[in-house]
Amino acid sequence: MPVATIEWVGDASGHARLIEQTLLPKELKYVDIATKEAMWDAIKRLAIRGAPAIGIAGAFGTVIGLQESSATTPDAFDADVARVTDYLASSRPTAVNLFWAIDRMRRKAAEVRTLPLDEAREALLAEAKTILEEDREICRRLGEHGAPLVPEGRACLTHCNAGGLATADYGTALAVFFKADELGKKFKVFVDETRPLLQGARLTAWELKEAGIDATLICDNMAGVVMRDKDVGAVFVGADRVAGNGDAANKIGTYSVSVLAKEHGVPFYVVAPLSTFDLSLDHGSKIPIEERDPTEVTAGFGPSTAPDGVDVYNPAFDVTPNANITGIVTEFGVIERPTLEKVHAFFREHAPERVAAR
Amino acid sequence: MPVATIEWVGDASGHARLIEQTLLPKELKYVDIATKEAMWDAIKRLAIRGAPAIGIAGAFGTVIGLQESSATTPDAFDADVARVTDYLASSRPTAVNLFWAIDRMRRKAAEVRTLPLDEAREALLAEAKTILEEDREICRRLGEHGAPLVPEGRACLTHCNAGGLATADYGTALAVFFKADELGKKFKVFVDETRPLLQGARLTAWELKEAGIDATLICDNMAGVVMRDKDVGAVFVGADRVAGNGDAANKIGTYSVSVLAKEHGVPFYVVAPLSTFDLSLDHGSKIPIEERDPTEVTAGFGPSTAPDGVDVYNPAFDVTPNANITGIVTEFGVIERPTLEKVHAFFREHAPERVAAR
Repeated sequence: MPVATIEWVGDASGHARLIEQTLLPKELKYVDIATKEAMWDAIKRLAIRGAPAIGIAGAFGTVIGLQESSATTPDAFDADVARVTDYLASSRPTAVNLFWAIDRMRRKAAEVRTLPLDEAREALLAEAKTILEEDREICRRLGEHGAPLVPEGRACLTHCNAGGLATADYGTALAVFFKADELGKKFKVFVDETRPLLQGARLTAWELKEAGIDATLICDNMAGVVMRDKDVGAVFVGADRVAGNGDAANKIGTYSVSVLAKEHGVPFYVVAPLSTFDLSLDHGSKIPIEERDPTEVTAGFGPSTAPDGVDVYNPAFDVTPNANITGIVTEFGVIERPTLEKVHAFFREHAPERVAAR
Repeated sequence: MPVATIEWVGDASGHARLIEQTLLPKELKYVDIATKEAMWDAIKRLAIRGAPAIGIAGAFGTVIGLQESSATTPDAFDADVARVTDYLASSRPTAVNLFWAIDRMRRKAAEVRTLPLDEAREALLAEAKTILEEDREICRRLGEHGAPLVPEGRACLTHCNAGGLATADYGTALAVFFKADELGKKFKVFVDETRPLLQGARLTAWELKEAGIDATLICDNMAGVVMRDKDVGAVFVGADRVAGNGDAANKIGTYSVSVLAKEHGVPFYVVAPLSTFDLSLDHGSKIPIEERDPTEVTAGFGPSTAPDGVDVYNPAFDVTPNANITGIVTEFGVIERPTLEKVHAFFREHAPERVAAR
């Protein structure tokens, strides 16, 4: 049930349009993003979120930022590219797809730096659109590789939103459910509401419901009893950054889910394209974890629900160690029981340019 | 830092006064409860909650309900007692203290059934006040037995509210922290916010802050990473009903916390007076679990935060198996690694009348 999470409107002097996800599920509103500052802000405040989607946002943001450029020399163009991309990269620290997409835009910019400005901009827009189209195709392939893992006639559980709203249109973890449903599999999905920002309740429950998939919303703290009592046969989650050894950073709470899955003998799958891997890090402990504003916890939905001035710990992500991961579903197949050796071997086979430098 | 969670105002024709806990921490408001229907409603909608406190509410509710009685014979009095207590017992199904307190009131009523109505009422009020005073004393003793288990210089974690607001004044799990603090121990407490109704954020964080104890609020799904990364040395929770084998029903999410504690080698303590034990059940699977309204999950903060009509699973409690419990702290000491044999032996020693019938 694809939704146009983010798209480009017009030619190289056009703008991006994206779903204002903070308003879902009450309101499906599209906003036009015509400045790099507006894009930075949209990423920061989670109007657009999800690792693949913010990669695309970073790519479109680069095009938009360079609309301001009046560079007349390649060196001046390089400087503008560096300024715009550094700025956009500062919006969120954890999701590696943002940096991956921005790097790709930088490489393209380096290729076209000697072209006339108009042509360079068109080439960059074409590159950003390619990233989006590739993401669509990758999501479909994630779904194909993951669907066989959905346990027929049983329940699955997911945390946060790794659906179409987190990608160009089909999702990562949710792509697995969409594809399994297309294939006629019968299953139900328990959806962790995912505090503090309730992406599970607001976005995942909405996407699954729109797609006609049997979904039941639960509070995060119910995942344990649900796994014990409700015939959960698999967990599928997305990832914001996967280290070289398969340790996976994802929305806060994912680590707890992985421990609960292990306790109950439930397979735990991370669904992530290769662009989510950061092979420069050998271990998940090196992934920077964003801490967010305490008010997300104390007044997440309007009224304050905690005493004034209370101390709050609000990390946006946590890292699930590879030992808790049954497999990572990628667009090229599943890396089972990931380790540093297996992940690197997988990249040597499917994306050798990513490991060549090592 | 005692708060008068519930108290009696006036003589036997008086009424109960309790803190309207649904308004905390924004507003500390006391409400007068002068009919059995108002007491039933206060228990049902969690204006008063916590196993020991609703026991006291049931006792005062019995006194209030019998103010309507115009019985002129012992049999008519018996009928009124049965009607009032059956009604009050229907307010919430899981917390056994409610039934325990109501049973105690029934036994007292049976003792005084031949007295003039005024005298019978006074005797019942005296019994209800005794239950309250005993609860105060029991809470102090829970604190004394639990305080040595607080790890010096490290962190603790708690779930839901087992504080003064859940009892007459000092709490069960929180009594441990209050007492450890009085003894000069240094420690901090991570407080699970406890979805859906946020008793941790609204009540526990407030009570600990009022008492000057170092408390940090977290979302429930952060408990795993906090145990892994933040030097948590013990978990303390309350209970709503403990089965004869030590399996403990407590606020939903407690089971997940117990699994996470086991994974991280963190001792997991249940703090509960003997009145919370139900020796008629040999196993926690026999404890009835209340399911509550889906809107607690979908619109718990005021505005709706989930798609209309989404399926929701909202159990109010879960059962932690005795295998996950390091010890149950009671007013007579700690039952370590509880089993059916150990719990019964403990009762034979400290409350033989409770096991005599077996």
